[in-house]
Amino acid sequence: MHQSFLISLGRIVLYRTGVKLKPSSFFRSPAGLAAVGGREKFHHPWQRDFSQQARKPFVWGSNKKHRDFKLKAQILESMASDPKIEEVLAPLRLAVKEQGDLVRKLKADGAPEIDVKKAVNELKARKKVLEDKELSLAPSVATFDRARMEDLLKRRFFYDQSFAIYGGITGQYDFGPMGCALKSNMINTWRQFFVLEEQMLEVDCSILTPEPVLKASGHVDRFADLMVKDVKNGECFRLDHLIKNHLEKLAAAKDATQALKDECTDIVIKLDGMTKDEMAAIVQKFNMKSPITGNDLTEPIEFNLMFGTQIGPTGLVKGFLRPETAQGIFVNFKRLLEFNQGKLPFAAAQIGNSFRNEISPRSGLIRVREFTMCEIEHFCDPQLKDHPKFENVKDIVMTLYSACNQMDGKSAQQITIGEAVSSGLVANETLGYFMARIQQFMLKIGILPDRLRFRQHMGNEMAHYACDCWDAECLTSYGWIECVGCADRSAYDLTQHTNATGVKLVAEKKLPAPKTIEVTEVVPNKAALGKVFKKEAKNITELLAKLSLSDVEAIGKNLADKGEHVLDVNGSDVSLNSDMIAVKTTSKTIHVEEITPSVIEPSFGVGRIMYSLLEHSFQMREGDEQRGYFSLPPIVAPLKCSVLPLSNNAEFAPFVKKISSALTSVDISHKVDDSSGSIGRRYARTDEIAIPYGITIDFDTLKEPHSVTLRERDSMKQVRIGVDEVSQVVRDLARSRLTWSDVEAKYPKFEQQEASTK
Amino acid sequence: MHQSFLISLGRIVLYRTGVKLKPSSFFRSPAGLAAVGGREKFHHPWQRDFSQQARKPFVWGSNKKHRDFKLKAQILESMASDPKIEEVLAPLRLAVKEQGDLVRKLKADGAPEIDVKKAVNELKARKKVLEDKELSLAPSVATFDRARMEDLLKRRFFYDQSFAIYGGITGQYDFGPMGCALKSNMINTWRQFFVLEEQMLEVDCSILTPEPVLKASGHVDRFADLMVKDVKNGECFRLDHLIKNHLEKLAAAKDATQALKDECTDIVIKLDGMTKDEMAAIVQKFNMKSPITGNDLTEPIEFNLMFGTQIGPTGLVKGFLRPETAQGIFVNFKRLLEFNQGKLPFAAAQIGNSFRNEISPRSGLIRVREFTMCEIEHFCDPQLKDHPKFENVKDIVMTLYSACNQMDGKSAQQITIGEAVSSGLVANETLGYFMARIQQFMLKIGILPDRLRFRQHMGNEMAHYACDCWDAECLTSYGWIECVGCADRSAYDLTQHTNATGVKLVAEKKLPAPKTIEVTEVVPNKAALGKVFKKEAKNITELLAKLSLSDVEAIGKNLADKGEHVLDVNGSDVSLNSDMIAVKTTSKTIHVEEITPSVIEPSFGVGRIMYSLLEHSFQMREGDEQRGYFSLPPIVAPLKCSVLPLSNNAEFAPFVKKISSALTSVDISHKVDDSSGSIGRRYARTDEIAIPYGITIDFDTLKEPHSVTLRERDSMKQVRIGVDEVSQVVRDLARSRLTWSDVEAKYPKFEQQEASTK
Repeated sequence: MHQSFLISLGRIVLYRTGVKLKPSSFFRSPAGLAAVGGREKFHHPWQRDFSQQARKPFVWGSNKKHRDFKLKAQILESMASDPKIEEVLAPLRLAVKEQGDLVRKLKADGAPEIDVKKAVNELKARKKVLEDKELSLAPSVATFDRARMEDLLKRRFFYDQSFAIYGGITGQYDFGPMGCALKSNMINTWRQFFVLEEQMLEVDCSILTPEPVLKASGHVDRFADLMVKDVKNGECFRLDHLIKNHLEKLAAAKDATQALKDECTDIVIKLDGMTKDEMAAIVQKFNMKSPITGNDLTEPIEFNLMFGTQIGPTGLVKGFLRPETAQGIFVNFKRLLEFNQGKLPFAAAQIGNSFRNEISPRSGLIRVREFTMCEIEHFCDPQLKDHPKFENVKDIVMTLYSACNQMDGKSAQQITIGEAVSSGLVANETLGYFMARIQQFMLKIGILPDRLRFRQHMGNEMAHYACDCWDAECLTSYGWIECVGCADRSAYDLTQHTNATGVKLVAEKKLPAPKTIEVTEVVPNKAALGKVFKKEAKNITELLAKLSLSDVEAIGKNLADKGEHVLDVNGSDVSLNSDMIAVKTTSKTIHVEEITPSVIEPSFGVGRIMYSLLEHSFQMREGDEQRGYFSLPPIVAPLKCSVLPLSNNAEFAPFVKKISSALTSVDISHKVDDSSGSIGRRYARTDEIAIPYGITIDFDTLKEPHSVTLRERDSMKQVRIGVDEVSQVVRDLARSRLTWSDVEAKYPKFEQQEASTK
Repeated sequence: MHQSFLISLGRIVLYRTGVKLKPSSFFRSPAGLAAVGGREKFHHPWQRDFSQQARKPFVWGSNKKHRDFKLKAQILESMASDPKIEEVLAPLRLAVKEQGDLVRKLKADGAPEIDVKKAVNELKARKKVLEDKELSLAPSVATFDRARMEDLLKRRFFYDQSFAIYGGITGQYDFGPMGCALKSNMINTWRQFFVLEEQMLEVDCSILTPEPVLKASGHVDRFADLMVKDVKNGECFRLDHLIKNHLEKLAAAKDATQALKDECTDIVIKLDGMTKDEMAAIVQKFNMKSPITGNDLTEPIEFNLMFGTQIGPTGLVKGFLRPETAQGIFVNFKRLLEFNQGKLPFAAAQIGNSFRNEISPRSGLIRVREFTMCEIEHFCDPQLKDHPKFENVKDIVMTLYSACNQMDGKSAQQITIGEAVSSGLVANETLGYFMARIQQFMLKIGILPDRLRFRQHMGNEMAHYACDCWDAECLTSYGWIECVGCADRSAYDLTQHTNATGVKLVAEKKLPAPKTIEVTEVVPNKAALGKVFKKEAKNITELLAKLSLSDVEAIGKNLADKGEHVLDVNGSDVSLNSDMIAVKTTSKTIHVEEITPSVIEPSFGVGRIMYSLLEHSFQMREGDEQRGYFSLPPIVAPLKCSVLPLSNNAEFAPFVKKISSALTSVDISHKVDDSSGSIGRRYARTDEIAIPYGITIDFDTLKEPHSVTLRERDSMKQVRIGVDEVSQVVRDLARSRLTWSDVEAKYPKFEQQEASTK
């Protein structure tokens, strides 16, 4: 089962596009910069969860059906109560815990970094063994057939590969009418739920970003993956994928010894934490070649994942397509603070596309080169991270998988967010508030509660600036995938942009009481300076005003000792004496202090959430495997209602038109299907595109009082209802003002066999 | 007044950004490819209207206030009735008409292209003189102060230059909370009005586009502007701007002779239709140098306006950021047709960003490098361009400025769209239907009817594939600017992509009666071929099946004459004899024929519409020039309601909270302003951000029955209304279910002086 991605995908699929691109990944952690492998680099925390749990590649657009793929959807929570399973897991949990304790001890003792790193890698290896065992023992509660779902998504054009008639490009998808409507409904729900309800400041910033901005944010230097190239034809391979595929193939060979198998497994597990040199050594040790041509490979190269371009006609202004929307908010901080009348806290939000030039994208919507994000940056006083609305959410029960439990080999736990914050598990109320709101949102759009968890970043995977970070993960056939990141980014970004531009990105905080402070500064004698230095005097005065306290003190000492100080003014030495400048210490009373706000960032990957939602809502009619459908909640369903005349009898037409107009007038999106298929077949077709309600015009409609049938997708139950009121009822159902039970209680049941006619 | 843009802007403003970019333009005609200057090239039809009517540059972010700019908003229609004005215009109209007649005659006589071209240029010159005179004589109906509006837009962060703390980039803007909300309300209204009401198939396609797609569409070869470079420092200048600026400066010099002035004016007017060589000759004749350094300039260079990048890590796959969203729809045509169950007509729509690397963007939102478009591609049978819903719109009166009237020196005319189609002025019902719907949409969001017109492309500016094209233009302080294009693109795009990919982008059309046709084809003897060519036989058979009729006939001739035919199979010659193949002609009965659909394309530039809307809705309170505001309709207003406690009295707080929750529960976006300013000042602040309704909690609110005041922005009238019903009333107002008159009629008037306190 641990087949290599690259190899099991096969050449034909990967290289049939006509453009030589390799499979790869998408979506760095919204948390951003993470300390990994002894140096700071951008880190993809889902790699472990995602690529190692995936059992079979996702081959979009392949002709090869792989119906053999079945997911056992695991609900780990339900396992805790099964003593038999716990018996098997106990020693594994213990092994994790022992190693976790060792890591803690090493850290506490201030052991050398290399020792800590080794221990952490071993901890990860043990966690992986435990997690695999847990998954393998989990009771299968549902059977999910990914190939069947993909087939439906493609056939009804929810989404499909971009530019397919030109051979297609990997990692790019076009959303068809149903996918586009689902996406825009998700986004509008998000906007309503977060921006409007919380009165956030939504912005819409440029995608093309000049280099200095992304230099400051760290992306130019550190937003890179490692790759190797075929020395002869230049084909590129993502280094971690290459090693993994090579070793898994080795281990799967018939003649592989147990020692070799163990070694391979061990390396694959630890890959994620390895440095460039360690990985290079492995490539060398196993004499790895290009899996396509057998040619030699280059040394590992860092490949920056941003798409570069030139802005303007000179070719001299380098720019990138933004890799996240967040930086657009940070560079507008001053304007937003002013818009908020200078007050903290406030939250800004942005919905938009970001771009990452993945080395080898794969796995459908999960790793792509172009994707939509919804990001929130909540700016607050670093000392005041409580939240006025925390009270509203504190009793919400969440599945939290803490760093501590991960280290101890325990499973996720169910706990109210109130307890989590008060016990210190979640760092502060604001972070907790957003986690609870994220959960509410995910459930509202249809994510299954038992396939949603919040996993805390462990110390070694958390970005160096973050003080806490939790990912909302959804369980899919690819394993647990990170869909929303929720991090406390502290003051990192604003500080970086302040340093790069000299523009202070700070807020003023009123002091509880006025404060008197001592200020030591260089006081220039402008007349004397002007006389000697003429025009240059202004530069000198400006330079003096910017000096740090220690520089000022040094000047004071020089003036006292030598009677002069030599200042470097743009590369020239300038001698200043006591007539020209003096160092003075004075008292000042201040009423406000400047603070750099902390940032709490919930960051949503729309494509990943959509993919999870599609898996969670994919259903098959019992006894009829041909009839797949999506049980999407009405709030996000692409269309809310279908209108189906029973046959092409001309007398039905005016009713169809009337009902269609009535639905339009109450803003209910709908589809008229007056094609010739049987009613059962047309129901099946509307089910496929997740339409929750169907109105059928039949021969009884022609009789007075005119009535139609109204059908609910998931239960397939129908009622008979008046033509004049049906649009209002559908509207109320679609807006959750009415439940289907209410409708069943009020209107007479309509019975009809729903034949599956293909 | 005809000051050069480049020069009057001044160096400081343009080059203070730190990145060396020049000012420039945005948004090619949605019509796309146009035949201009004797060769096909992409054409910017608004250049004439826009750049020549603009009197003063738009210096966003400049410190220099230019309050001297006043627009006399002209309503040309109202002029027709003034006989005194008509007297002045009559000879000018006649001059245009005479020249128009000459152009018609030359075309009819099949005169040499160069003669037609010269005559067209003269026609344009005369049209320009007429139009300028019309504008100068138009009664000023309103005074518009652009600088004051810009100041407000910037101060309240509707939008502002991107990356300003890094020096900014010209042609890129970030939308702040109010601009973003306005934009997303406009887009949602658009989606409701077009996609949902017309049941269009909305898609969401990739922005990154591989080169072959844009090669086929013509963008790689022809989507370019001409520029010249400073030979020493490489600075770039858009050629037409450079010439215009240079000549206008020459003509404005004190010592300029009348002959020189006339020559300059003549060239500037004709610039738009000039070829590269003609423009190069002018640069040489006037010995033009870089206006910045005085250095020599290069020969004119074609600069492609697309942003290029590499997709994937090899650096070998070239891609571009899409310059329009339309191509994404065309390449998905097959999937969309299938989604529509193979039936024509249907319309697809897309909302998304496009990118154009303008040489020197300027004029705020009107010419930018990154912009949002809403595009519709309506696919229909080329023989059936009637529209089932045309009946609904036929009585709508529109201001149409036909090509004919433009050639005859007449002004725009008011006519129902029904008449326009039946008289043949507008090519067909579908085009007419969309024009009417565009007008309905524009008026719905608040565009002023007397500043909206539809201008038909003249023969010489229309794209070579289009059979008719009308631009919806809005009158602004920049002149008439093109905001929506509505073109009949015929089968151009689908044909181009079919040719490039070999994938037939066609629909099947049922024939009125089955038809018998003769089919001449090569019939292979598979056994014989297989025996000789083994595996290669399959390739041969496939190749034979793809041959054109003339190739098949040639084979028949060769077989008859020589007994063999030599076929080129992937570069190798293969000899085929009469045993292996035969050429046969048979009769076949067909029931359907394949047709390439025609495309009617309404294409909306969101930023341009937004800018026009802001100008059209900008108002100042009579007698108080400090109180600028936007009278945006509630449907697009960024926020629908404000909630203002009269003072910070603690007893008001619970009412604020209650009303805010009630508004949230009915999905009404709102802003609570409990800051300490006077109520008048806070009203002024909410007016500035276009909030149409304001709820004030005052001391009477504390008495039972609890009530508040409700204020309407434009009239500043107030009523007193119960706390429990106010949110419902605001909701109904915001959704146009209730008018303000209804509210005034129902609830008691509340009188209060609204002091302007700054």
